[in-house]
Parts: sequence; structure tokens; C-alpha cells
Amino acid sequence: MWRSDSASQTMTAGTRAIPEETAIAFTFNTASYAVMMATPQDLEDFAVGFALTEGIVTSPDAIDTVEIIEDDTGIELRVWLKAKDAAEFLGRRRKIAGPTGCGLCGVESLNEAMRPPPEVGQGQVLTPNEIMTAVASLATHQEINRETRAVHAAGFWEPARGLVAVREDVGRHNALDKLAGACVRNGGNAAQGIVVLTSRVSIEMIQKSAMIGAPLVVAVSAPTALAVRMAEACGMTLAAVARKDGFEVFTHPHRIAGASKSDVA
Amino acid sequence: MWRSDSASQTMTAGTRAIPEETAIAFTFNTASYAVMMATPQDLEDFAVGFALTEGIVTSPDAIDTVEIIEDDTGIELRVWLKAKDAAEFLGRRRKIAGPTGCGLCGVESLNEAMRPPPEVGQGQVLTPNEIMTAVASLATHQEINRETRAVHAAGFWEPARGLVAVREDVGRHNALDKLAGACVRNGGNAAQGIVVLTSRVSIEMIQKSAMIGAPLVVAVSAPTALAVRMAEACGMTLAAVARKDGFEVFTHPHRIAGASKSDVA
Repeated sequence: MWRSDSASQTMTAGTRAIPEETAIAFTFNTASYAVMMATPQDLEDFAVGFALTEGIVTSPDAIDTVEIIEDDTGIELRVWLKAKDAAEFLGRRRKIAGPTGCGLCGVESLNEAMRPPPEVGQGQVLTPNEIMTAVASLATHQEINRETRAVHAAGFWEPARGLVAVREDVGRHNALDKLAGACVRNGGNAAQGIVVLTSRVSIEMIQKSAMIGAPLVVAVSAPTALAVRMAEACGMTLAAVARKDGFEVFTHPHRIAGASKSDVA
Repeated sequence: MWRSDSASQTMTAGTRAIPEETAIAFTFNTASYAVMMATPQDLEDFAVGFALTEGIVTSPDAIDTVEIIEDDTGIELRVWLKAKDAAEFLGRRRKIAGPTGCGLCGVESLNEAMRPPPEVGQGQVLTPNEIMTAVASLATHQEINRETRAVHAAGFWEPARGLVAVREDVGRHNALDKLAGACVRNGGNAAQGIVVLTSRVSIEMIQKSAMIGAPLVVAVSAPTALAVRMAEACGMTLAAVARKDGFEVFTHPHRIAGASKSDVA
């Protein structure tokens, strides 16, 4: 790596730690599903979390084994579902498969992309201070990001236990999928705390969080309008633009002490 | 929106401009291809650019028309290829289609994801000052980002003409696809300047830039290791971590005046 310095008008040799990225292919009982570029860590969490947040399974118990198969081009995450779950999954897939390519017509694909997630449960009421603490605690546990300044993180924080899990990835969806997998594999319950994200909040981040039943999502960056509408629809409290001096609440403020719907002009 | 202020320990009502996001489905001659979440602007540029950077067509001339069909769930970009090009595209698709779902086995999907892009051409040698100017000029033309602080931009800058085109999107790949479409639709030539990105550089950003023949890519944020290897392999000069006081060059520094391979320790 060469560093160009505009003050001295010179270029000098240097080094920089940059994050790894690997093509990861998901197959479920040999049926190909998707390929993603991701940080090649916590791959079992990734497999379990992705299967849950994409609605391929409704419980981690449906997964028999996860094989991690590496070759020159990347990594295949070969997920084996138990017989009954596999039959259901492949049956759903066949119903939407048609003659050309993946066979979804544009309209069906749009419906699939905009699928409404389940409504989230009651959860608990937290204070603004607890939310700030959750965000601050994530910042001190981003180990890959400390070296590279170039990866996202997703964390799960509980009032009683603090930061329970953190996962990092070059892709923000992947970080959330890995977190989801880590939580369920450790017997965690998303209803008992906050999903904290370093990234912007697009609609998929809300859909995935709702799929694991998270009633409260807090992000460092801003949400899109579609993400706000989806959080509103599924009953989720979405706080974002979380900075050192405060944060903004976009939906369902009743889970944050001191906020109420009647405050809004 | 409610703003929680940690100093005053209060929550007050407020407003914030947040970016729109829409599910966009691509179909080519009725064959479904992909659904993406994107900013619903510059959709014809998006369609043409995506078709080029994904290798669906090798020239914009292969595209007959682009229909934009909107409904409650999102937007379908219905691209009609000319007869000969459509036959080639559908033929390629059928060859890789199999019995279950999209029919790609994991290994084939990985090979597809890691496809080596074409080697980029010679391009020209630019000075570090020109590169800094290109980056600075993009910052002043991000209109959606000025309001929302939450969207990426991709721009094309030429030494003789300055910033020729800018496109913005909630997704960084989409911003680059829209830029690619805008450039070719205006008869531009990526070999004559710099592709400037506000985002991090993952491998797809290099693949897409190479597909439109860009010899020089400059990004505000950092690249992944895989992106650096891909830029090295296709002969592209990749500069990144572009700040007010300089930038870093990761591959093929011969296109930047004052840098040479022998500088590196």
C-alpha cells in the first residue's frame, strides 16, 4: 500500500489492516439458496441465524448439522435440515419454482421481498440511559473493527447481563444473521433486551430482527423510510442515530421510559 | 420521531428527513433476475447499468426498452432485450438451471460469484491532486445525502470536464450501477477518468467497475482484502481511505504520478 500525503506532496510505502471477505454459498439439503460475500468467521452462527431470519426454519431444532466446505473460490455452508423440515422447505421451494431460472415473476419476487414479518411481543420498558449504555458497550467490543475500521457489528444487550453477544462482518445483514444465530445457539431470548446495530437500518434489518422476536432495535446510523414503516407495522420500537448526546426514536416509543405517543406534535 | 437528549434527560418531538427505499424487481424478457432494495430514482440508469455490470448485456444497444411498472409492493424494472441478445441470455440461463429452485449447486454459485472480470485498459496517469479534486467534487454534489446523511454516492470524474455524473442510492452497489448506466447512456467512456465512491469497497464494486472498463477507482472508505486481490488481478488502480489530507493506493500505482511499485518496502 502507498500513502499519498497532500501536505508533503509525496507518496510513501505503508501497511494497513484490511478485513477479509469470502464468497459464502448456502445450500439446504443440497438445494442452493444464495451466495453472499461475508467475513469468514462465526460460520455456524451465520448458518443458523440466516436460516431463522430468512424463515427457512422456525426453530434451530430443525437443523440437523452444518457442514463448512472450503475450496479455492470460497466456502459452502451446507445445512442439513431434519427430514420433516427439509420436506416442508423443499415443498415450498418447488411451489414457487417455474420454467425460467429461479422462476419467480417480478410481482411474486416483490411480494416475497416485502413479506410482513411476525408482530413482535411486548418486551420490556427500558430507560434512555440503558439504551445509551447498550450502544456504548458495543463500541468497546468491536474487535475486527478496531483493527480495520471497516466492518459492521451487531450486538445483543440485556439490562441484567449487559452485552451478551457481538458479531462482526463486512456486511451489515451478515453481522445481524450471525448475532441471531449466536443468540439462539446460546439459548438467548431476543425479547429480553436490545438488538444494537452499528449500521444504517434498511427494511431487511427490521424483517430479520422481527423474525427473531426482537421488540427493540437501536442503531448508530439512520433508518430508511421503508424500514420505519415496517417497524411500525410489526410493533417494534426502532431507535436510531444513536450518538454520545442522545438518540432518536422512530416507532413505538412506549418501550422507552419517558417517551409517549402524545408527546409528538 | 422523538429525540432523547442525554444532557437534559428529556424526550422531545422532532422531525428528520430519511431516505426512501423501494423493492425493485428486475426481469429480462419476462425472466426474473433479482430483487433489490433501492432508492426509487434514476431507474432507467439503474436498469441499463445493472445489465452491463452483471454481464447480462455487453452493450447498451442490446436493450430495446425499459418498462417501469409500479404497484403497492414496489417497482418492476422490465427490461426487454433485442431478439438475438434475449436468446443468448435465456440460453445461458437455461444451461445453469436445474431441478430445485434456482438450480445452481453451491460450487457453481461460488464460481459465478467469483467470476474474474475483464482486464481493464491502460487508462491515463493522473496526479494525486487530481484524485483529491475528484473526491472533493463528489462531496459537494450529493443532493439526497445532504438532506438525509444516509445514502451512498458514486461519481465519474474526468480531468478535462470535472464531475460528469453522480448517482445516489441507499445501496452502494445500486449507486454504482446507476452511475454505470448514466455514463453509457450519455456516451461516456470510463477509461477516461475516475470512478469515485463514498462507500467501502467490497469485491462486487471492483467487478462492476471492471465490467464498464474503469481503470481507476477511488473510494472514501476502505477496501476488503478480496477487493484488493480482484483489483490486482484485473489491472485496476484502487485508491481508498481518501481523506482531506491524502489517500492510500492499494494496487497498480503506475496510474498515479509520483508513485511506483519500487517504492514499496
